[in-house]
Amino acid sequence: MEKLNRRTTLKLMGLGAAALAMGRGLAQQAPTADQLVKGKNAKLIVLSQRPVVLETPYDLLVSQPERTPKEILYIRNNVDLAGYNTVEGASLEGWSIEVGGLLDKPFTLEAKELLNLPQSEVTMVLQCSGNGRSLYQPRTSGNPWGRGGVGNVTFRGVKLKDLLAAKGAKPTEKALFITAHASRQGGAAEFVRSVPIQALENALLALSMNGEPLPAVHGGPVRLVFPGFFGVNNVKWVQKIEFAEAENTTAEQMPRYRVPAIPNTHLPFLPQEPGGRYTYTFATSRPNWLVNVNSFIFAPLEGQTVEGPYVRVEGVAFNDGIVPIVSVELSADGGRTWFKAELEKTERSFGWIRWRRTLYLRSGAHEIMARAWDAAGRSQPLDGNLAWNERGYEWNGVMRVRFTVA
Amino acid sequence: MEKLNRRTTLKLMGLGAAALAMGRGLAQQAPTADQLVKGKNAKLIVLSQRPVVLETPYDLLVSQPERTPKEILYIRNNVDLAGYNTVEGASLEGWSIEVGGLLDKPFTLEAKELLNLPQSEVTMVLQCSGNGRSLYQPRTSGNPWGRGGVGNVTFRGVKLKDLLAAKGAKPTEKALFITAHASRQGGAAEFVRSVPIQALENALLALSMNGEPLPAVHGGPVRLVFPGFFGVNNVKWVQKIEFAEAENTTAEQMPRYRVPAIPNTHLPFLPQEPGGRYTYTFATSRPNWLVNVNSFIFAPLEGQTVEGPYVRVEGVAFNDGIVPIVSVELSADGGRTWFKAELEKTERSFGWIRWRRTLYLRSGAHEIMARAWDAAGRSQPLDGNLAWNERGYEWNGVMRVRFTVA
Repeated sequence: MEKLNRRTTLKLMGLGAAALAMGRGLAQQAPTADQLVKGKNAKLIVLSQRPVVLETPYDLLVSQPERTPKEILYIRNNVDLAGYNTVEGASLEGWSIEVGGLLDKPFTLEAKELLNLPQSEVTMVLQCSGNGRSLYQPRTSGNPWGRGGVGNVTFRGVKLKDLLAAKGAKPTEKALFITAHASRQGGAAEFVRSVPIQALENALLALSMNGEPLPAVHGGPVRLVFPGFFGVNNVKWVQKIEFAEAENTTAEQMPRYRVPAIPNTHLPFLPQEPGGRYTYTFATSRPNWLVNVNSFIFAPLEGQTVEGPYVRVEGVAFNDGIVPIVSVELSADGGRTWFKAELEKTERSFGWIRWRRTLYLRSGAHEIMARAWDAAGRSQPLDGNLAWNERGYEWNGVMRVRFTVA
Repeated sequence: MEKLNRRTTLKLMGLGAAALAMGRGLAQQAPTADQLVKGKNAKLIVLSQRPVVLETPYDLLVSQPERTPKEILYIRNNVDLAGYNTVEGASLEGWSIEVGGLLDKPFTLEAKELLNLPQSEVTMVLQCSGNGRSLYQPRTSGNPWGRGGVGNVTFRGVKLKDLLAAKGAKPTEKALFITAHASRQGGAAEFVRSVPIQALENALLALSMNGEPLPAVHGGPVRLVFPGFFGVNNVKWVQKIEFAEAENTTAEQMPRYRVPAIPNTHLPFLPQEPGGRYTYTFATSRPNWLVNVNSFIFAPLEGQTVEGPYVRVEGVAFNDGIVPIVSVELSADGGRTWFKAELEKTERSFGWIRWRRTLYLRSGAHEIMARAWDAAGRSQPLDGNLAWNERGYEWNGVMRVRFTVA
């Protein structure tokens, strides 16, 4: 499917170029985000029409530093579900979810039963594991995301473990993974993804987002979200949940959505020669699972001119939520000196946390860097390209912004 | 065996206390390091007599910042090989090594054949995965190491992959681990350890250390070393090497020498309640494999009084050698500001690298912190205790030193 998307993208780019050559009239015919998905902001960048992939422009992203509204939230769909390209909710009526595999009491749930169970809420970063991909050099396969394949949203619904408890069902000891399947209604493509059993602790069958019914295009009526895990693991339109002994072996699990790694080490990735090829197996790679430590500078923006000499620098930082972010540090001198920013909070969080610091900067051109550091001792690579991988996943290089102080 | 050691240690501590109560005469009868192991410095701290476990006092460690001489190098033996408690070399005569398992052409090697094969050299950190254990609160099981369970040494010998090439042997595709067995001569206890197949790249059958025959007490005549891996994986007195599909299941692999983790993530460890219990399985933990990022302050030392206001701070830093250390930073204000130190080198290294920086510090009491940061974005926890685990492995918390500027 990735290849298809790429082809579609390239075709679109080709069309765009041809259209430009022919004059403005034709170019305007490429569908805009709001035409592709009802209710989306027209400014979203169309990376693919079908399945729909939309990126949030960075200036729109930073304009909403608390929660990312549904109108601007990025989309990376792998499945094109007929009639679901809208930010409005989808009906629970007739939607059922099979829960089984290595479970002592398998069951089928009418999704609307979820409304009668205790509701839980989680604010979490939703981020495509390809976010930042276009920063890798040389270019990799996949949708060429800038930094706008990310958002911070609040999901509400029923914890999977609460559902199991309500049904009196328990995964067996052999269950090491949770495998979720998206609906194939209307002949949609298969989409299956596995996460480790440890993800059960926070897994949520989400029915709403940001206080409104979960948008159909974002997986409504029911999406199985795993706070702390990259976007791809949060299966939309969930129809089947299996407890399994092994990771599933469909394309979304292997070789897609993986990075080179030595399994069972704390190595975030195995560096390889940029531009090279790699043989992905379960023994030479790991899935895009836990969100890696990252921080984004929301202000100043690249290329801006700001008042000085006191310049307010601000942004957000996040990780997998397993431990807190302990520090975000800024450098205005190429990394020789780093100053700690004020953090919005120091407790662990699946959502991003905001940070800010005022720096004293003379008139002229400046480049600042921001890096986050978490309690487990994880930080970001100074040069993100060291994690180069042929599918361009998990960019979390230290962000640099160049701007001018007036 | 760990339990035995602990009992021995506790017994020794008990004896010491009793002896102190009885006066100095009796206390002096506890064997010193040089009495336990011929050629060791008498100042080494005896953590266990049998198998012998000796810690390098920190002031001795820092006195040799380039290479750690055999006389002061720490020992953490799990096996007590009769006649091998000496820093002198051991005879290759009659020593043979079986190489097999998932190998297309298994063979038995007369160890002295290694002398006729191309020799390779590697300088690497040798560090017990329990180094720093006594910093965990509450106290954990295991030998109560301070920070002296570490050294930087140069091994020379034959690369395992060169040996395989010379024999025309290749691991099969199913081989995912290298499992090494220590000699059991004289009825010695079993010691077996597995590392991932990726470790083959740098594996070395070491015959010498720091330019001299490999000391018998450190694994001579032949030790299989894996640069970048914690001490326990570098099997002394190697007698059998197997290529295997799975990790071995003897006690040194499971449950010993592991930390709680979610497998196949880049999570360095899974935080748990200090003092709590954990169920170690292959699915809930990972082995002490790759050395985690660490930095030690070698000067000033804790409690010292130094001349000011310009104070030279220096030390060493290391990681698993897969990517370079990119920065070591110092803070003298509790982490609000960090200053980058000069690094001895910025290429990747299995050995530790030295760093230094002169700080301007007023007269009075100071506390400095040092943290290393590598190219993969890995750093150290600000509070090392977050990695608390019941066996006390892999401490790499940011080091703090308190001293006075005159």
